This record gives sequence, structure tokens and C-alpha cells, in this order.
Amino acid sequence: MKILVADLEGVFLPEMWVSVAEKTGIEELRLTTRDIKDYDVLMTKRLAVLKEHNLKIQDLQKVIATLEPLDGAVEALNWIRQEAQIIILSDTFEEFANPLMVKLNFPTLFCHNLTIDGQGNITGYNLRINNQKTEAVKALKGLNYHVIAFGDSYNDVGMIQEANQGFFFNPPDSILVDFPKVPVTRNYQELKTMISTALMVA
Amino acid sequence: MKILVADLEGVFLPEMWVSVAEKTGIEELRLTTRDIKDYDVLMTKRLAVLKEHNLKIQDLQKVIATLEPLDGAVEALNWIRQEAQIIILSDTFEEFANPLMVKLNFPTLFCHNLTIDGQGNITGYNLRINNQKTEAVKALKGLNYHVIAFGDSYNDVGMIQEANQGFFFNPPDSILVDFPKVPVTRNYQELKTMISTALMVA
Repeated sequence: MKILVADLEGVFLPEMWVSVAEKTGIEELRLTTRDIKDYDVLMTKRLAVLKEHNLKIQDLQKVIATLEPLDGAVEALNWIRQEAQIIILSDTFEEFANPLMVKLNFPTLFCHNLTIDGQGNITGYNLRINNQKTEAVKALKGLNYHVIAFGDSYNDVGMIQEANQGFFFNPPDSILVDFPKVPVTRNYQELKTMISTALMVA
Repeated sequence: MKILVADLEGVFLPEMWVSVAEKTGIEELRLTTRDIKDYDVLMTKRLAVLKEHNLKIQDLQKVIATLEPLDGAVEALNWIRQEAQIIILSDTFEEFANPLMVKLNFPTLFCHNLTIDGQGNITGYNLRINNQKTEAVKALKGLNYHVIAFGDSYNDVGMIQEANQGFFFNPPDSILVDFPKVPVTRNYQELKTMISTALMVA
């Protein structure tokens, strides 16, 4: 039996930190895993920037609540969920993602969480487990699933390579140079075709 | 971080085989895991009965498509999905469950599948993995989740005991005699209270 796992931001939702950067005008928050491959380096920098600008969780949630799924994302995800099981594997935090999951009709999401003090300051982040995407694929394979994985970023490469089948969705050119053998889809129509084919093959 | 796993039939949907028994008048199809604890014995009997009555997958799907979720199930499941992540762990088959999952707004479902020949005869069933519910809980714990499990039947006991927290939902009296230490909920209001409490405890 087959199951899909997919990234969230850049696939179904806009990059939340980029959106926060745009709304707040704080350019340093624009960096993503596309730019800095070491997630801990990236997150430590983000939290330092938030502290510097005295931005609290409530401020971030207000911005995030105004975001919408990418054009066509809801339809594409609804289609996928009629065809197969899917779990979203994201290195976001539940405090960020929750206000947006309703707009995607609550697909199952595996992610991380934040440490927040009584004043709403984000004092730390908790990775539920290191390399959670790759580990989730291993666990699903251990449950005798044939896993099909897709995402757009460097933090998706591990799960894509661990999966029985994997491909990129709308990735930056830099990844394609680094991983030229991974198949690529660039829009939801190509995504549907790739998934249909993957589900058909025995 | 916490995640819920739950049984499907008897919790959110009616028992599908019981419904098929009622609609077809074939009393032998009424048996469930509540009655026969050995799942292979139960399924082998069911398939023999189907063959005897020349019932094909299309006949079963027609009956199943007429079923509705239990009263209050959609609302309860929607509430749960706003509060936490949940995966449905069921020993049903995807060919049976799929027509009904739309009515539950497509929660993620881990189950099994059937072998069906060109004429629609169900010639066998494929357990994706033995003790899939218990194994799924182990896998989720391996991903550093605190797992909260609930179900109504003997085939839920393994996952309930393996989980960090577990309880019954509307079980038959026979299970309560066999497993007197497992907490019990008997309706969706009690379910919500139990889940709220479980999610609050650190």
C-alpha cells in the first residue's frame, strides 16, 4: 500500500517567514531553508531577530492569519486526499501552522513546537526529533507503506531520498544543480500527473 | 508533542460488516472483532460467506455508500482536528472505507486492502502489517510523539496499551470485564472531555 508525504510551505502554503518579513519590513526574516541549509543556524538567527524587534507570538500569528494557501493548493490537496493518504511533514511549528490548517481542511501535519513565555516572547524552539521528515518516512516504511515524498527545499531532500519514490515540487534552481537526478514537477497539474503515475505503478 | 490515534468503526462510523449483514439479510456477516477476537479467523469466514452468496465488491460498495457517520461523529472529529493531530487506525480495507471517508472530511487513515479479481470477486485480503495499530503507535512514539489512543474493540486493546495514554470509547461490556483498568468514555461529550484533559497534561 502507498502513502504520500509532502512539505507544506512552498508546496501548499507560502513561506511563512518570508510573509512575516514582508509584512513587518524586517528583511532578515526573509531567509528560509532554501537559503540556509542548517536549520538550527537559521532558527537561532530568526529568534534573535524577533527578540531584537520585540516581536511576540501574537504579532506573528496576526500576520500568519492573513495568509492564504497558494493558488490552486486547496484544490490540489483535496484531489490528493481523494486518491491516497497523505501526511504533511513540515519543519514549521504548530503555533505558526495551526491558524492556516483550517484553510487546507486539516490534513494531518507532523511538525515541531515553540517555547513561549508568559509575555508571548518566543524563547526557544523544540525540534520534535532531528531529521523528522526522513525519520517519518523510515517509520512509514517500517509500517509496510510504499512512501511517495515531495517537497521544494533542502530540508526535503532527506525524505525524498529515503522514500520509495520522491520528487521536487517547484524547487529553486540551486537544488536542481545539487540533486540533478531527482524528478521535478513545477505546478499542480504536473504534480497530479506525477502522483497518478506513482499510484498506478504496482 | 502529542498526537491522537483512533479506531474508525464503532467510533466514527457504524460497523460496516454489520450494516452489510442488515442490508443483505446475511446474518453470518454480522460478526465483528467484538465477537471473534482472531481477525484472520473472522476475515476468512467473511470471505467464504461472500463467495457462498456470490457477493462482489460492487455489491458491498453499494451498501457501504448508503451508510452515514454515527450521530455527532463529524462534529466530534472536526473538533478533534482543531485541537490536535489525529490518525485513524482501522483494520478495515481501503476499498470499503474510501466511499465513506469523504463524509468524515478525509482524516488520515491507516488500514489494509483487498485482492479483487477481474469479475469483482474478493479473493483475499492483505494485512499491510500484523498488529498494525500497535505498530503504528510504536512508530509514532519513535518519532517522539506522546500518543493518545482510543477505540471500542478487542483489536484496539494493543494500541491502547502501547500508547502513552489510552481509553475505550463506547465499548461492549465484555471488554470492560477483560480490561477493567482502561478508562472508558461513552459518548462524544465524554470523549471531548477526556481528550481536552489528555492534551492539557504536560
